[in-house]
Amino acid sequence: MSTIVALVGNGFEDVEYTKPVEAFRKAGHTVAVVGLKAGEEVRGKHDTPVRIERAVGDVTIDEFDALFIPGGHSPDNLRIDPVAVEFVRKFVESGKTVLLICHAPQLLVTARVLRGRRVAGWPSIRVDIENAGAEYVDEPVVEDGNLLSSRRPEDIPAFVEASLKRLG
Amino acid sequence: MSTIVALVGNGFEDVEYTKPVEAFRKAGHTVAVVGLKAGEEVRGKHDTPVRIERAVGDVTIDEFDALFIPGGHSPDNLRIDPVAVEFVRKFVESGKTVLLICHAPQLLVTARVLRGRRVAGWPSIRVDIENAGAEYVDEPVVEDGNLLSSRRPEDIPAFVEASLKRLG
Repeated sequence: MSTIVALVGNGFEDVEYTKPVEAFRKAGHTVAVVGLKAGEEVRGKHDTPVRIERAVGDVTIDEFDALFIPGGHSPDNLRIDPVAVEFVRKFVESGKTVLLICHAPQLLVTARVLRGRRVAGWPSIRVDIENAGAEYVDEPVVEDGNLLSSRRPEDIPAFVEASLKRLG
Repeated sequence: MSTIVALVGNGFEDVEYTKPVEAFRKAGHTVAVVGLKAGEEVRGKHDTPVRIERAVGDVTIDEFDALFIPGGHSPDNLRIDPVAVEFVRKFVESGKTVLLICHAPQLLVTARVLRGRRVAGWPSIRVDIENAGAEYVDEPVVEDGNLLSSRRPEDIPAFVEASLKRLG
């Protein structure tokens, strides 16, 4: 079973957080909820509350097998924080599994780790992905090395299935 | 007096729309409220309602002297629409005044008209601006040719003052 770190901030796309986390836990994996401030309650776009367990500055990538980043406004809110960006950079470069959906690639753009990669994402960030030197792929699930990515809430079933297969 | 087109979608940063539009109108300029759908009511992040007067597909750049794009989530929501992106591209390339605040440069990234330009914007989109071939400038007001840009709500007084000076 894997230990997954979910990196979450305000304005996440509710179902892109709740459904995968529920499925990961149901399958027996552990999910640690990490954000900018330990103890803070962040809210989804549709008001789902999530309690941040630990601050991103207080964890290391060594504690986790995989990183999960839900979409919505959360990635754009998180990428203002250099510690969150550095955590993402290290995780992607470590070769460990990184699960991305919707706006999640924004964090990888700011971390400058997308060059040469193939990713799916919310269509609005397509040119940002391309300008970062990556290929935008318009498919429900895209796997490229350690990156597994999906475009939108409708892709969640395929995203969860492919993620669970990879997490083992 | 100028005729300004305000390009607005859901999730705009409320004060970044309301304060400049109020100031432009008070100074005697005309502001046309344009969005994806005529008659639609869009809402700001903090719930301010704005009625869209005309659809971006039903207007031409020839009708306006200046384009104003408020920030928040609105630019990311608008740039999914190819017609809105094309309108922005034509406006920037026309040489007419373009007033940008916060996340507004996202629309110019997708329109691929930022190469070689200098702009301010919300810090989260800094790398997107740089990857688009532009220089991100961390100042309250940045003027580069026909582009006038600011970073955030706190810059609104300086943004409005510089915009009014330019609108004449």
